[in-house]
Amino acid sequence: MGSVTLGELAQHLGTELNDAGQRVTDLPITGLATLATATSGQLSFLSNPKYIKQLAKSDASAFIVHPDMLELVDKPCLVTRKPYVAYAHASQLFASMEAQESGADHDGSGIDASARVSPQAVIGERVVIGPGAVIDAAVVIGDGTRIGANVSIGRGSRLGSDCVIHANVSIYQRVHIGSRVILHSSVVIGADGFGFAFDGERSVKIAQLGSVRLGDDVEVGAGSTIDRGALDDTVIGNGVKIDNQVQIGHNCTVGDHTVICGCTALAGSTHIGRYCLIGGGVGITGHLTIADKVSIGAMSMVSRSVDKPGVYASGAILQESSQWRRNAVAQTKLADLSKALRTIEKQLGKRQL
Amino acid sequence: MGSVTLGELAQHLGTELNDAGQRVTDLPITGLATLATATSGQLSFLSNPKYIKQLAKSDASAFIVHPDMLELVDKPCLVTRKPYVAYAHASQLFASMEAQESGADHDGSGIDASARVSPQAVIGERVVIGPGAVIDAAVVIGDGTRIGANVSIGRGSRLGSDCVIHANVSIYQRVHIGSRVILHSSVVIGADGFGFAFDGERSVKIAQLGSVRLGDDVEVGAGSTIDRGALDDTVIGNGVKIDNQVQIGHNCTVGDHTVICGCTALAGSTHIGRYCLIGGGVGITGHLTIADKVSIGAMSMVSRSVDKPGVYASGAILQESSQWRRNAVAQTKLADLSKALRTIEKQLGKRQL
Amino acid sequence: MGSVTLGELAQHLGTELNDAGQRVTDLPITGLATLATATSGQLSFLSNPKYIKQLAKSDASAFIVHPDMLELVDKPCLVTRKPYVAYAHASQLFASMEAQESGADHDGSGIDASARVSPQAVIGERVVIGPGAVIDAAVVIGDGTRIGANVSIGRGSRLGSDCVIHANVSIYQRVHIGSRVILHSSVVIGADGFGFAFDGERSVKIAQLGSVRLGDDVEVGAGSTIDRGALDDTVIGNGVKIDNQVQIGHNCTVGDHTVICGCTALAGSTHIGRYCLIGGGVGITGHLTIADKVSIGAMSMVSRSVDKPGVYASGAILQESSQWRRNAVAQTKLADLSKALRTIEKQLGKRQL
Repeated sequence: MGSVTLGELAQHLGTELNDAGQRVTDLPITGLATLATATSGQLSFLSNPKYIKQLAKSDASAFIVHPDMLELVDKPCLVTRKPYVAYAHASQLFASMEAQESGADHDGSGIDASARVSPQAVIGERVVIGPGAVIDAAVVIGDGTRIGANVSIGRGSRLGSDCVIHANVSIYQRVHIGSRVILHSSVVIGADGFGFAFDGERSVKIAQLGSVRLGDDVEVGAGSTIDRGALDDTVIGNGVKIDNQVQIGHNCTVGDHTVICGCTALAGSTHIGRYCLIGGGVGITGHLTIADKVSIGAMSMVSRSVDKPGVYASGAILQESSQWRRNAVAQTKLADLSKALRTIEKQLGKRQL
Repeated sequence: MGSVTLGELAQHLGTELNDAGQRVTDLPITGLATLATATSGQLSFLSNPKYIKQLAKSDASAFIVHPDMLELVDKPCLVTRKPYVAYAHASQLFASMEAQESGADHDGSGIDASARVSPQAVIGERVVIGPGAVIDAAVVIGDGTRIGANVSIGRGSRLGSDCVIHANVSIYQRVHIGSRVILHSSVVIGADGFGFAFDGERSVKIAQLGSVRLGDDVEVGAGSTIDRGALDDTVIGNGVKIDNQVQIGHNCTVGDHTVICGCTALAGSTHIGRYCLIGGGVGITGHLTIADKVSIGAMSMVSRSVDKPGVYASGAILQESSQWRRNAVAQTKLADLSKALRTIEKQLGKRQL
Repeated sequence: MGSVTLGELAQHLGTELNDAGQRVTDLPITGLATLATATSGQLSFLSNPKYIKQLAKSDASAFIVHPDMLELVDKPCLVTRKPYVAYAHASQLFASMEAQESGADHDGSGIDASARVSPQAVIGERVVIGPGAVIDAAVVIGDGTRIGANVSIGRGSRLGSDCVIHANVSIYQRVHIGSRVILHSSVVIGADGFGFAFDGERSVKIAQLGSVRLGDDVEVGAGSTIDRGALDDTVIGNGVKIDNQVQIGHNCTVGDHTVICGCTALAGSTHIGRYCLIGGGVGITGHLTIADKVSIGAMSMVSRSVDKPGVYASGAILQESSQWRRNAVAQTKLADLSKALRTIEKQLGKRQL
């Protein structure tokens, strides 16, 4: 990888440069690494105080730190009140340097000869379409968007500008996707919602006539699926970040800037507020409303609406198997236990009289 | 979208047409919508009484309703004892109208030039094979079946007629699929079941020599996986509906018309009866038998067989985090608590003597 | 399918051949089946004593059995102290015979004309690359590796020898994969880990600069996803077996020969030991360390490190719905119940004084 100077980094990240008394503006920085693994020439960062001890031992040549930590370091520092955010911006810079150097931004430019692009599709400028990708009629793709290998985009779908759609993504018909959206491999957007009417003998399919709308700056992790609505649309707000293998049922809405961790599932017609943080492996049943700024712990089952911000959970604590079995069996008799206790309380109360 | 007359709809759906004293047989209906969002010219429906209030306010031009609701409406109605089923049939009609109009049923007909179809494959009439699809030797595809872009179908697999296989589906070798089956994107049918024999040092792979059989009218949601059997086949009955990201282990059997919601997993060699309803996020361990007509609540763990119909559950209720933590810790001492209570009961019992 | 003689099987599996007084070395064996379904000419096996009764009734022509079981059988037997391991090896033999006979090992040899292989890729001998597969620049593929249809392999990734990569797998850039690795369809290796820095208004993406390393003899089930590391790599050890729809977050490490069942999720930076057995549907939160030889029951939530070998669980027992509801509600008041009990104990204790 090439390098950038510490001064350029300070400017790019909008941080102060504390040179520890040395002339370091021109110090070349070749990469980004953790405190423990950084080598000379690399930049590291301290955002979590529990790693303070690693700071002194680190071989990094410079650090991103909070002003309060400055006195602990005798090497050059990029100083900011939000070191983790500065690290995020630095990571993007190094990623783009790596991409440029490897040529990944150059090859595959334009539309690969093996892509099948409908003549009725409208393709913006600087769009890259990878080998084997299939773009159906009436699809619109905004400027600078990159479509990976063997992606399929159905009739009438629209993507904004500067999106990155990774290999083997499937987008069904009439899906609307904002700008700067990232979809990882095996993501499926707009498959039919799970709707059937049981006629007494069999399940009659309810055709899913709605679609899916994703806002700007949405990221969806590998293998996640977002179903199209039955009549209205499924809607994902701006800045929403969805991890891998998340399932979002038809007609759900997810508010702006909410974060959903891996393997979480939303059943149909559930509405999640803005700035929520939904842990991994959570299940949220259908037709619920979750307020803004709600945090839900990993592996919780949410079967009721949550109408005020706060932290919620329902998972169970890991136990050794023999102990767990005794407690799990007791759990199946808990209501009776509770009743027995109340009876005793009454008995004792009477005696006390 | 085009339109259909209310009279044609009544005939198609097999419902009575109640004209509310108006001549409405020729009333053009341009679409289907919810009570809340319907506009003039559209059809809506009332199947859940809790939406009765929306009925009066709705701008829809006609409604599908139960005869008992008829007096609440002063607009034309399609009257049926099963309004939700009629809605399902209406949704299919409008979906096919949309598909025709957009030309989706016309383009892509036949076998795309970029599909790779083995000369040893047997392809029925009116079959559509999308760009980049790969059809291996000895595959048989029934009349009217549509294979999406970049689908892969392995050697010797057979599909019935009028199936819809969406983009990026993977079907392994020797899989048998019935007619009118729908497989959504990223579905994988027939991957190896998870079988290993531990020899004391390492896991020796058990080759999965069985396969998978899907009945007629099965639908499998995006990202779901159904593994091939070790020696015998994994079998999915007729009319089974499987939601997104469901995992079905090797040698499971699922009875006719059972419905499995999203993110549920069946470990190997488990047998599910007919007309069961398995909620989302459920885990069913291996080698169990679940009777017909069993309903299992969302996120339940099923670790024992269920031998009679009924409703079952094991999930936990969401709590505020501080409360949850106290209760979750108490849960790990529940058996001891139960024992202490029994001791007190004995003490009290003795005293009462 | 063709056949192999019982004598050849004994030699191949390294078992003793007990002929029950008959001349059976040349007995042709045409296949492998369970005790219940085997027909004449087939081999079966008994590894679980609970199937002993099926042994006498089985129509199989020969059996793999433990020496202790020998007296129960009056047909030819392959005798070994590890019948399940011998069965595993036999299954592989029959699978390879089936593949040879169907010609699956012959067709598709070499690089399909519709595959897009970068001229800067380095392709070993006897490599098979299926239709529509896309191999980016600087990829290295070892001898005998087979790449399925429409697979995508990103820039600079390296695969060892004799791997099998099934259709529609996505491998991102710079991933390192060992030898004899099997990746099933829709697997995604090396997608971005889920990392964001919240700047007070929105989530700023942390570019994932690390990658993924898979050891030798790893198998990954359909639809599973293994994310690339933020700065360091995500590392999967030798002989690790991962079932379908498993999610492994960035910077996790999984020790050699650990087995992870379906739908389990590891959040980021968690370290699993060697020879662990993680059940299905388990959720393991981030930044934990799990010791070697730990077994975790299905659907457990693991939110603390486990520092010694053993069997652990946290799932809940299935109950009839009406009973479940009472107990689940009582569970939300469990800490109060526990407190009430302790109060009573004190009261009683005082009285006893």
